Amino acid sequence: MTSDLMARRRRLLGPNVPIFYDEPVEIVRGEGVWLWDAAGRRYLDCYNNTAHLGHCHPRVVRAIADQAAVLNTHSRYLHRGLLEYAEALTTRFGHGLSQMLMTCTGSEANDVALRMAQAATGKAGLIATDNTYHGNTTAVAYLSTRRPPIGGWPAHVRRVPAPDSLAPLGGSLAAQPQAFADGVARAIDELEAAGHGFAGIMLCPIFANEGTPGVGPGFLDPTVEVVRRAGGMILCDEVQPGFGRIGSHFWGHELLGFAPDVVTLGKPMGNGHPVAGLVARPEVMAAFREAFGYFNTFAGNPVSCAAAMATLQVIDDEGLMENAREVGAHALDLLRGLDHPLIADTRGFGLFFGIEFARDGQPDGDFCGRVVEAAKARGILLGRVGRAQHILKMRPPLPFAGAHAEMLAETLDAILREMPE
Amino acid sequence: MTSDLMARRRRLLGPNVPIFYDEPVEIVRGEGVWLWDAAGRRYLDCYNNTAHLGHCHPRVVRAIADQAAVLNTHSRYLHRGLLEYAEALTTRFGHGLSQMLMTCTGSEANDVALRMAQAATGKAGLIATDNTYHGNTTAVAYLSTRRPPIGGWPAHVRRVPAPDSLAPLGGSLAAQPQAFADGVARAIDELEAAGHGFAGIMLCPIFANEGTPGVGPGFLDPTVEVVRRAGGMILCDEVQPGFGRIGSHFWGHELLGFAPDVVTLGKPMGNGHPVAGLVARPEVMAAFREAFGYFNTFAGNPVSCAAAMATLQVIDDEGLMENAREVGAHALDLLRGLDHPLIADTRGFGLFFGIEFARDGQPDGDFCGRVVEAAKARGILLGRVGRAQHILKMRPPLPFAGAHAEMLAETLDAILREMPE
Repeated sequence: MTSDLMARRRRLLGPNVPIFYDEPVEIVRGEGVWLWDAAGRRYLDCYNNTAHLGHCHPRVVRAIADQAAVLNTHSRYLHRGLLEYAEALTTRFGHGLSQMLMTCTGSEANDVALRMAQAATGKAGLIATDNTYHGNTTAVAYLSTRRPPIGGWPAHVRRVPAPDSLAPLGGSLAAQPQAFADGVARAIDELEAAGHGFAGIMLCPIFANEGTPGVGPGFLDPTVEVVRRAGGMILCDEVQPGFGRIGSHFWGHELLGFAPDVVTLGKPMGNGHPVAGLVARPEVMAAFREAFGYFNTFAGNPVSCAAAMATLQVIDDEGLMENAREVGAHALDLLRGLDHPLIADTRGFGLFFGIEFARDGQPDGDFCGRVVEAAKARGILLGRVGRAQHILKMRPPLPFAGAHAEMLAETLDAILREMPE
Repeated sequence: MTSDLMARRRRLLGPNVPIFYDEPVEIVRGEGVWLWDAAGRRYLDCYNNTAHLGHCHPRVVRAIADQAAVLNTHSRYLHRGLLEYAEALTTRFGHGLSQMLMTCTGSEANDVALRMAQAATGKAGLIATDNTYHGNTTAVAYLSTRRPPIGGWPAHVRRVPAPDSLAPLGGSLAAQPQAFADGVARAIDELEAAGHGFAGIMLCPIFANEGTPGVGPGFLDPTVEVVRRAGGMILCDEVQPGFGRIGSHFWGHELLGFAPDVVTLGKPMGNGHPVAGLVARPEVMAAFREAFGYFNTFAGNPVSCAAAMATLQVIDDEGLMENAREVGAHALDLLRGLDHPLIADTRGFGLFFGIEFARDGQPDGDFCGRVVEAAKARGILLGRVGRAQHILKMRPPLPFAGAHAEMLAETLDAILREMPE
C-alpha cells in the first residue's frame, strides 16, 4: 500500500520530495494530540507544532467553515475580521510592535521581513546563523542553503557561526553569548567594508533550528547591543517558539528579554490553515509600505482571519500556555530521568524539548535517527534537528497532557534500553 | 463608518496598504457573482477571478469544512488527496507537463518557477516584460518593480518592452509578435554577454497585466523560437487565463499555441482558499528537486487539496468553461456596441475582457478611473490595468450569465453617456 503510494508520488511529484520515515506513514485522521494511519493505527503526535491547539480543533474548523460560507475575498475591500485580528494580535506585543502585515506562509513573512529591514535602514546586508532555516522563497533560502545558488552566493548575505552545545562558541557555554555577538560584529564589519551596509539579522529567539543550544534569558544581550550600535534591525522569527509554546511567555523574545524590530509568525497561527504574518513598529512598517507596493491576494482574507482569531482565542480559553508550562516542566523532568550513555543533554522550554545524542563528544545523528524510527514503530511521532540531525525534536500540540508526557518518556526509556548503541 | 474602518486600518496596518475605490467598500457577504456591503447594498462582481466558481461555492465550502474536520497536516506524511489532485490536474496538460509542485500562493509558485528555470539550465538570467506583475516575493518582485530595490537592480534580470495596443512594438499590431521576440533576443544576448547566461522567460500567455494588447494564436511563436534557440525555459504564468476562464481552452498557452516548460497556477485554483502550484515536465521538476531541498509546510495539505479538487470538478460539472465561452462572446458583443469617442479598443477572451480608453492616441487612465468609480456607485465592481491604468479590466466569476453581461453593458452605456469627457 505504502509502496504504491510512494510510486505514485514519485511519478506525480518527482524525485527528492521531503518525506518522513524509512517507511512513510499514510495519515488519514487527526484529533487533539493523535494522528491515525490508514490501517487505523494511532500515533501520539510529539512533532507537529502547526496543529498548535490539537489536530482539527472544532472551534477553528467551525470558524473556517462558517466564514468560508459567508465571504472569502481579498483585503482591497474593507473587512472587520482583518482589523479585529490585527487588534487582538498586536495587543500581545510590547516594544511598540503595534502594526501587522498578513501573508499566507512563514516563508512569505520572512521574505517581507528581510525587505522591511532593508527599507528601514536603506542598507542591503543581511545576517543569519550558519545552521538555520527560515523558509523557502529564493531570498529567504539564501539564509540557509548549503549549496551555492545558481548564479553564485549573494554577496549581501553573511552567515555567522551558530551557537552549539557540544562545541560552544568561545569554548564554553558561559562564553557563548559574547562569542556569538563577536561573530555578528565581524559579519557586520564585512558587510560594511564590502559596501552593502547592514540592514538586519534574522534569528529565532530560542534558536530552534540550531537545537536551542545553551540558550536562555540574556543570551542575546551582547548581540542586540552589537546590532543596535550598527543601526541594524532585529528580525525575530517566532514561527516555532511563539503563541505560548514555550510556556513561560507568549513569545520567545520575551523569554530571552530583548526588543525586536520585526516579529514574524507562521505555522501555528491558524492551527494549520495557511496564514502567517509580521508585526512591526509603525516606522518600520511605514518604511516597507512606502518602499514596496506590497499586496498579497490570499493574505488577510476573512477565512484566514477567522482561523487565526479562533486560534488566538482557544489558546487563552483553554489555558494552553499554562498547560505548556506545566506539562512541559513535567515532561522535561521525565526526559531528564532517562539514562543512556549517548545522551549528551536534555533541554527545553515549555512544550518544546530535545534530547541531544553524542558519542565521544561528537553528535550522533545515526543513533538519533534510529530512535525516531523506533518511536514511530511504537506509535510515537518525533522529529530531529541539529547540525548532524542528532537532537530529538519534540514539539507536540499544546493540549499535550501529563499522561502523554509519561507515555513519551516510557516509550523512549524502553527504546533506549533495547537499542544497540 | 467607512472612514472609521479606514482610520483603524491605517493605525493597525500602516500607510499605503492597497485598497479599492476613492471611498472603499466594506464587503460582508458573497454568493455567486454577487457581493454585498455592510449596508446591504448588492454589487455585481465583474472583477474577482479568485472566486472562480462564484463566491462561497457550496461544494468548495463543504470540501474545506469536511476535510478540515478530519485532517489537516503537511506532505511529509502520505495522503491520497495530494496524489489524486496531482493526477486530476496533470491530465489537463499536454506537452509532457506531468508533474506537480504545490505552494500556497501564486507568488510562491512563480518564485519556484524562476529557480526551476535556473536549475534546469544551470544559468541565472531571467526575462519578463517591463509592464507586468507576477507576484510579491523578493525574487518575483524583481520582475515587476519600478523602483530600484535596496542594494540596486539585480543584474541577472532583464525587462523587455511589453506588447502594447496603442503604440505597438515594431509600429503595428502585425509587426508586434516579431518585434517582441526581437526584444527578447536582445535581452538574451545581453544576459549572455554579461556572463549570467539565459535561464528563462516568465510570461502570462495572454499578457493579462499588460492589457492583452493585440494578443492571439501564434503571437508568441517568434518568441518561443528565440527562447528555444537560446536553450531557455518558458515559464507560463496561468494565474489569470487558466482553469477555463478564456472559454476556448482550459489554459492560455493552448489558445496561443505553444508548449511551456513550466506552468504556474494561483488565484482561482481553490476558489479563494490559499492554494497555488506549478506543473512541469519531469526533467525540469527533477532539476529543481535535486538542486533545492524545497519543502512548504502548508502546501499540498489535505484541506488545500480538497478545495482545489472540488474547484476542478465544479468547473467540469457546471460547464463553466463553456459558459465562459458563450457568455464571454455575448458580453464582448455587447461591450463592442458601446459608443464613446474615448474607447480605443474593446477586446477579450472568454470571461476576461477589457475596454481601452485613449485621448488623441494617448492612454486615458483618468477617464478609466472615473468609469470604475461610477460603476461602483451603480453597483458594479470593475478593475483597471495597463501602463497608464487606462484599460477597464473585467474578469468576473465564471457563473456570470447573459443577464449579468447585459446589466454590465447597460450600466457602462449609461455611465459613458453621462460622464464628462
